[in-house]
Amino acid sequence: MSNDELAQLRRDIQILKDIEEIQRMKHGYFRCVDTGNIAEIAPMLHDDVDVHFIGGTYEWNLKGKQAYLDAMTQSFNPQVVAQHNGHSPEIHILSETEATGFWYLYDNFWNLAEGRYTYGTALYKDRYVRERGRWLIRRTVYRRIYEVVEPMPRDKVPNFTYRWLADPNARIPD
Amino acid sequence: MSNDELAQLRRDIQILKDIEEIQRMKHGYFRCVDTGNIAEIAPMLHDDVDVHFIGGTYEWNLKGKQAYLDAMTQSFNPQVVAQHNGHSPEIHILSETEATGFWYLYDNFWNLAEGRYTYGTALYKDRYVRERGRWLIRRTVYRRIYEVVEPMPRDKVPNFTYRWLADPNARIPD
Amino acid sequence: MSNDELAQLRRDIQILKDIEEIQRMKHGYFRCVDTGNIAEIAPMLHDDVDVHFIGGTYEWNLKGKQAYLDAMTQSFNPQVVAQHNGHSPEIHILSETEATGFWYLYDNFWNLAEGRYTYGTALYKDRYVRERGRWLIRRTVYRRIYEVVEPMPRDKVPNFTYRWLADPNARIPD
Repeated sequence: MSNDELAQLRRDIQILKDIEEIQRMKHGYFRCVDTGNIAEIAPMLHDDVDVHFIGGTYEWNLKGKQAYLDAMTQSFNPQVVAQHNGHSPEIHILSETEATGFWYLYDNFWNLAEGRYTYGTALYKDRYVRERGRWLIRRTVYRRIYEVVEPMPRDKVPNFTYRWLADPNARIPD
Repeated sequence: MSNDELAQLRRDIQILKDIEEIQRMKHGYFRCVDTGNIAEIAPMLHDDVDVHFIGGTYEWNLKGKQAYLDAMTQSFNPQVVAQHNGHSPEIHILSETEATGFWYLYDNFWNLAEGRYTYGTALYKDRYVRERGRWLIRRTVYRRIYEVVEPMPRDKVPNFTYRWLADPNARIPD
Repeated sequence: MSNDELAQLRRDIQILKDIEEIQRMKHGYFRCVDTGNIAEIAPMLHDDVDVHFIGGTYEWNLKGKQAYLDAMTQSFNPQVVAQHNGHSPEIHILSETEATGFWYLYDNFWNLAEGRYTYGTALYKDRYVRERGRWLIRRTVYRRIYEVVEPMPRDKVPNFTYRWLADPNARIPD
């Protein structure tokens, strides 16, 4: 095997590692939003992250890590039950420090304080950059594939028998 | 490290790349069906693709790429809201040009024109072949794990606040 | 490329292969529980597997492979319709024989015999060990993110048009 072939193998492995690292990071993002663990999300975000989420009834258009963290902290409060499942990653590594990714989201969001149930799907189009050896979210954009918003008066609230975000002691046992 | 060991590493890397490529292709397939982007699906299909979908109330038994594309074009029309989430890929690379894959589907399908809501899950068993450097779907078969079909009169239609398939300008912003 | 570099490449490839093998194994687990294929789960479990599932209304606390297999055999019976979708794996390879993994579960469970519909999400925290060349589940723990339990009297049962667990001839055609 020539040195050129070995260099190619090394690049191939690096790309596979990068895809795995980006996917694992975004997987952690979904885990953390729905458990209100915003502190663990902070190191996933670029300082200058751009956020543009186009819902059917709302729009998030945010600049910078702190604005994004603040918005998430406000949204994922104890009066909320949230489910964000990210499917079907299509990660493309553009260079040693740049990548893009599609994700297919399915989400349920019960807002108990405001009496509203929202669900639907969306397509994410992300951009990632690698800084100091770590992949970060540089830009995250989604548009809905469909969205449903239903009023949720008290007698329509599902019979929740557990809600992590309302449980100050929630943790997974070791 | 001997030449034999290096050859084994090269094969291991190729298998990991093949699994990633097949998964990314199928992920694109799910993204494209639910956004009616049938043109982008065409290059994923083998010319002689076999399709056999066994639902509880329907059956697709199709031969060839054009028949499959035509059926999808008809199904994913503006009067439809569709969600196809593919979970749990189990890809096995059989050779440099042959592979199999299980997928676990969860789907929601609202047919507004016909007043019918169908949902459920299914197990896919796919066969893939590699031609001209690209993995293609050669055979795709599924059987339901469960299926529910509910009539959807007008007063039971969910309160859709966005529907991609009904929006001629739908696209994800860059 | 030095011998050290080659050894590092070999370790990198082994880690990627291990992640893929663990994910494929757990994907098979989800496929098998919902199709009642408990026999195929047996070789995925360590003899001394620890199981601790903390639901909102139930708790599984089991020791050992046989206890776990027995509990699954009892749960996934013909009077049940089950959907277990495992999202967002975060696998960490700790050594050549030890690994951990988070998974984000979404499940639906209709118990027709007892007239009860349970759904929700949960976070898994697994430990895996490698024995005789195969990754096994050594410990599997989950806690709910949310859980809903609804009574399901006869007139509230969804209109199931197919149920794999109730079909003794269920199989995917080749």
